[in-house]
Amino acid sequence: MRNRRVLLASRPSGWVSEANFRIDETPLPQPAQGEVLVKNLWLSLDPYMRGRMSDAKSYVKGVELGEVMVGQTVGEVVSSRNEKFKEGDKVLTQLGWQLFGTTTEATRVDEKRAPLSCYLGVMGMPGMTAYFGLKDIGQPKRGETVVVSAASGAVGSVVGQLAKIWGCRAVGIAGGGQKCAYVTRELGFDACLDYKAANLKEALRQACPSGVDVYFDNVGGQIFDTLLTQMNLHARVVVCGLISDYNATEPYAIRNWRAVLVNRIRLQGMIVFDWKERYGEATKALGGYFGEGKLKYRESVIEGLDNAPRGLIALLKGENFGKQLVKLA
Amino acid sequence: MRNRRVLLASRPSGWVSEANFRIDETPLPQPAQGEVLVKNLWLSLDPYMRGRMSDAKSYVKGVELGEVMVGQTVGEVVSSRNEKFKEGDKVLTQLGWQLFGTTTEATRVDEKRAPLSCYLGVMGMPGMTAYFGLKDIGQPKRGETVVVSAASGAVGSVVGQLAKIWGCRAVGIAGGGQKCAYVTRELGFDACLDYKAANLKEALRQACPSGVDVYFDNVGGQIFDTLLTQMNLHARVVVCGLISDYNATEPYAIRNWRAVLVNRIRLQGMIVFDWKERYGEATKALGGYFGEGKLKYRESVIEGLDNAPRGLIALLKGENFGKQLVKLA
Repeated sequence: MRNRRVLLASRPSGWVSEANFRIDETPLPQPAQGEVLVKNLWLSLDPYMRGRMSDAKSYVKGVELGEVMVGQTVGEVVSSRNEKFKEGDKVLTQLGWQLFGTTTEATRVDEKRAPLSCYLGVMGMPGMTAYFGLKDIGQPKRGETVVVSAASGAVGSVVGQLAKIWGCRAVGIAGGGQKCAYVTRELGFDACLDYKAANLKEALRQACPSGVDVYFDNVGGQIFDTLLTQMNLHARVVVCGLISDYNATEPYAIRNWRAVLVNRIRLQGMIVFDWKERYGEATKALGGYFGEGKLKYRESVIEGLDNAPRGLIALLKGENFGKQLVKLA
Repeated sequence: MRNRRVLLASRPSGWVSEANFRIDETPLPQPAQGEVLVKNLWLSLDPYMRGRMSDAKSYVKGVELGEVMVGQTVGEVVSSRNEKFKEGDKVLTQLGWQLFGTTTEATRVDEKRAPLSCYLGVMGMPGMTAYFGLKDIGQPKRGETVVVSAASGAVGSVVGQLAKIWGCRAVGIAGGGQKCAYVTRELGFDACLDYKAANLKEALRQACPSGVDVYFDNVGGQIFDTLLTQMNLHARVVVCGLISDYNATEPYAIRNWRAVLVNRIRLQGMIVFDWKERYGEATKALGGYFGEGKLKYRESVIEGLDNAPRGLIALLKGENFGKQLVKLA
């Protein structure tokens, strides 16, 4: 048995293309003392991966050329030289775009509590991003209006459902009528606006008759700039993603900054790693809501490691619908 | 004796001109029950006044055409129908650009503690803006680097001096060598950069070898955009003023927003009125530092009410040096 891996072959300029990746095969790695050998079952695809393909300064160092693409995976322990794990354990790891890998850093997950793939979505990093960003930065109060962009996506869908659970009006922004219908009918948001249609500013005015108290921004760019004009006094903006800029060669230029001063808006950039010591709190809360059937989710599944590059490109173009996953086995 | 007033005659588009104002005379107003009649001695000129001349949405409603221009004043009670005040009391009021006025809203000030004009500057609204913005939003820790723009101005000069008192490195940004020399030599900042000279980004790198932890922004625009690229992880930005945009017909377009996400920066718009219930705390702290000689200040005084329009125009162009005042009597 051999390992199969997707490596970063070249850095994209503008849109990612399949030519930026290369696939190779290597002998199966052997676990050292303290490590487990894991067979990956599910790979998560996420917008942040675009940043790691670049060598511009970001949260952490980018992927080096010729290295395995980074990514979170759920897999099964094949052999263990770590007393905390045994063969057959299901674990969450950071093994990246490959079929097998060895690591000392694994977190056991409970298949009875939720399907394995959920630990990459609603119960995983995207769910926790939504939880901490909305709770700690957004600080929504009962009766307030929360707007979230990329509302049908892995983070956005949880943001809006948490907003509803916490007693707020939830308004999503998504691309296309099909996604908007899903966001309102299945996820239970109060409204969802199609940014591809018509006048977003006017649509926001109608969907948010009392203005916007919290904006959870997953996209940046023109949508962020438009939202600035709709924020209430002392509103909060969670700056979580900039997907509209990730593939742009020139950043979008923000023109409505004056609103921040006039309405004394608070804005804060976030990455979920900053809440590492509180992951337990999020897992418990999200697990509770999930168990009660209050957190619905949708997955967009691509089969086979070799199709992961295509999956990431589609994700960056907004073609996915729900949490984007690659089924590896 | 008659009253003399400066009224808003027309709304400026772009730069303010003297033609936007009109001067008139009226009979001396008589205090109603509960009011005092005040003879204004000092009028404060502040950048926010540009906003009040416009009818665009801002903190509060703009001045109506034909109304007296708004502004804070220090004056002397001439006659009182309010038992809390007696003739000769010195008071801080919001009577605006006129020689006399009646009001129920006056705050007694203590001439022995500080010269009267200081209650419009270092001990007044600008000083409190610096105090609450830096303390509550900037939250500087000992050893951190605080950068402030318009550093020789009424707010900026207090921000940097408080940063030094609280154990930080204070770096100012000001226009021209003369102001910069004042900021370092007289106010005791560690460095001051001339935004009119050379490459601000490179100058910031040299003056802030450990990066920027707090940026107190009084100007917005390109300086704000440049600062974004120099902020440390978890840095804070106090969004206090946008003087660079006040007279622009098109707002400046911000291009470095991505830094907010990468470094998880927190930014917050402020206006000192939001701290109304804590003014006492600021007055006490600033009064203490002032008494110890730790808060130096400089005033730019224009003589005579009729020259107030010219003074405001100069202020908006950055031609003042220190707190801009009009001496009325």
